[in-house]
Amino acid sequence: MNIILLSEESGKRLWPLSNGVRSKQFLKLLKTQDGGYESMIQRTVKQIKKQYQDVKITVVTGRAQVSAVINQLGESVFVCDTPGKKGKFWQIGLAASYLADKRKTDPSETVIVCPADLFVEDEFFCVLEKLCQKSGEADEFPILTGVVPTYPSEKYGYLLPVKENQYIYRDRPDEKTALRYMDEGALWNSGVFGAKLEWFLKLSHKYWDFYDFEDLYNDFAKLPEISWEKQVLEGKETLQAVGVLGSWRKLGTWNTLTESMEDAFIGNVIMDQKCENIHVINELDMPVLCMGLSDVVVSVGPQGILISDKQNSSYIEPFVDQIDEKVMIAEKSWGSYRVLDVEEESMTIKVTLNPGHSMNYHSHERRDEVWNIIGGKGRIIVDGMEQPVCAGDVITMQAGCRHTIIAETELNVIEVQLGREINVEDKKKYELEI
Amino acid sequence: MNIILLSEESGKRLWPLSNGVRSKQFLKLLKTQDGGYESMIQRTVKQIKKQYQDVKITVVTGRAQVSAVINQLGESVFVCDTPGKKGKFWQIGLAASYLADKRKTDPSETVIVCPADLFVEDEFFCVLEKLCQKSGEADEFPILTGVVPTYPSEKYGYLLPVKENQYIYRDRPDEKTALRYMDEGALWNSGVFGAKLEWFLKLSHKYWDFYDFEDLYNDFAKLPEISWEKQVLEGKETLQAVGVLGSWRKLGTWNTLTESMEDAFIGNVIMDQKCENIHVINELDMPVLCMGLSDVVVSVGPQGILISDKQNSSYIEPFVDQIDEKVMIAEKSWGSYRVLDVEEESMTIKVTLNPGHSMNYHSHERRDEVWNIIGGKGRIIVDGMEQPVCAGDVITMQAGCRHTIIAETELNVIEVQLGREINVEDKKKYELEI
Repeated sequence: MNIILLSEESGKRLWPLSNGVRSKQFLKLLKTQDGGYESMIQRTVKQIKKQYQDVKITVVTGRAQVSAVINQLGESVFVCDTPGKKGKFWQIGLAASYLADKRKTDPSETVIVCPADLFVEDEFFCVLEKLCQKSGEADEFPILTGVVPTYPSEKYGYLLPVKENQYIYRDRPDEKTALRYMDEGALWNSGVFGAKLEWFLKLSHKYWDFYDFEDLYNDFAKLPEISWEKQVLEGKETLQAVGVLGSWRKLGTWNTLTESMEDAFIGNVIMDQKCENIHVINELDMPVLCMGLSDVVVSVGPQGILISDKQNSSYIEPFVDQIDEKVMIAEKSWGSYRVLDVEEESMTIKVTLNPGHSMNYHSHERRDEVWNIIGGKGRIIVDGMEQPVCAGDVITMQAGCRHTIIAETELNVIEVQLGREINVEDKKKYELEI
Repeated sequence: MNIILLSEESGKRLWPLSNGVRSKQFLKLLKTQDGGYESMIQRTVKQIKKQYQDVKITVVTGRAQVSAVINQLGESVFVCDTPGKKGKFWQIGLAASYLADKRKTDPSETVIVCPADLFVEDEFFCVLEKLCQKSGEADEFPILTGVVPTYPSEKYGYLLPVKENQYIYRDRPDEKTALRYMDEGALWNSGVFGAKLEWFLKLSHKYWDFYDFEDLYNDFAKLPEISWEKQVLEGKETLQAVGVLGSWRKLGTWNTLTESMEDAFIGNVIMDQKCENIHVINELDMPVLCMGLSDVVVSVGPQGILISDKQNSSYIEPFVDQIDEKVMIAEKSWGSYRVLDVEEESMTIKVTLNPGHSMNYHSHERRDEVWNIIGGKGRIIVDGMEQPVCAGDVITMQAGCRHTIIAETELNVIEVQLGREINVEDKKKYELEI
């Protein structure tokens, strides 16, 4: 079984925890049985792998999130990165082409597409087998799956029954229309569907002429915008769909996300007994004290602080647009960094490298840097010279100097950057010549 | 006119902005006419000086707050520090002794005592003149001032009229009793009162045998606990008081403080239009977004985050007691510092020195330090060797090494501390031998 897991680009609806480089599906907010926390994408992959041991999952995601996928899912999935934002249609198109060319998947095999931000019970994924089978037999067009709506949402797509197993698709109706659809027995489109790989390939070729994966990848910026829902689903006269029982949720807003949290809070949080139906997520070290609040979500992270009535939290986007989103924390393939202090001509960050990992060998043109090693052991290479480092060592690097740091144990570094124009673009990478 | 301005030790009721070394009266939350912000103590001193140009104000305050007094009030006041916490009675006693011995004040002069955390209109202070005059003539016992209560508070003291200008004092009644007092025409004790200096001195001598200011200062830890309200005021059969018109407020809780704020927010804050009667104070750089909240106070600072229903915010103390209060930000006589990062065997702080100021010449036994100069110019002295420094310089200091830094312009430093037991007690001060 082949699964394309759609890891969509970061939205702003889970600000301040999601930012330009961290999407909601990577936030570790869901409790695991052993008391730890996992992200939506980790949960989904775990659920699927539990039922289908030899499933091949390909995560399709933006470039900025490849590190997060690797950190969270390791070798358990393949990763197909998209070199830009083109929406779901071309995410699927590129992933299909990746499966055909890079993974040498037989075009007659079935491929199932599944969003990474679902929150469903394990049972939900039983449907994948049926989907596989049906997609193999039937019409070329994908077989969709539908779930029974629980309220007249204006944000989902609806499958309206026309005859047995035959539906038409209607995207995001207004509330009144949604109510009517519910009366008529419509289902929500769950976002999980399957078709043969060749169908996906043919669909892409219909809208763009390309030779293979590399070709499509290189053309990515030029591809026309196509809406999967409006142009593919609504454009089809009747669709086949399979109903799935059980609860289904997309964790897209603070309101829906907190409904899926087992605990009232995560992190350093104190609440008085008058707090009712509140959820607090605190990613910082400092304490958060909540008193006498009701129906409120509080979210605290390096990017900022959100305090919102739960209902209102769905309307966050235009407010987040007003905020100058400088990335204050980021997960990288080698570890993570966090901005501690910003001055006009300096920036201080804390860098954590995972054992065995290293930064790229790189230089900056317009800033000097100082590494204060505060914990761990490793090696540095500065202008070709290698030397061991440990806590207490201080390394100063002038602009232009090539440098990297290699962690033997987990390595913590306070990096002080000095210069007039400090930005992430000022970085030149080099091959290490050793 | 002599005024003793009582700057009481930090309470926890304005957490997280007040902490072990920063008291509420130093928080710059009150708007000035030119659009800036001032603290309660700055406002009070300004109001008094406006009406009484040659007033001599002595601020009596705990040692940890002397730097804040000097930074905020400069040369405009005298400072008498108390070497421990002994409550209002001995704060007044020590300040009286300071006036007599250090400032050579004539014992027959009138002294007015005034809390530093009042919030009153300018007109309120017109009463000081009358108070001065009356205190000079009458009974030795202080003349108090009373204001008309606006609600049956359980937190204030009441002056119950017995005959014209004669009152008895009752401290903190329950609400029912307070209501009865109000019916009987009682006033709130405003906390402002005056008597001759000799009376204050005599009172102190009644409870402790001492020779002069130095003597009392050195004995401070041994002094018996005496309640000004319970033992002095309630102990007196009848008191004289003068009524003062106009609004009077003690800014002791978030609830009362926010009532005195002109703006709904201070700092980097965004609110949606559904927010009603909320106040947000954000001392951090990161944005705070509030949506759909009513009757809430939000306070964000380096010590932590408070989000409370306004009513409930008065009951904050037991919750703050649960919080391990590591000082994350402090104002010093030479500038300020803020903790950026804490690890098991390291701490990173940002130090800002004001121009012309320097740290003490000092050493640490159990930690090494690195100074990363990120802005400004100055000089350092390390083990007796002096050298100029500017942005980009890095100075490493082993444990035991004596060091100081002197700012010529404002100097910003990222200080990385490394060691197994990092704490503020590990500090030895030296005289500079130059």
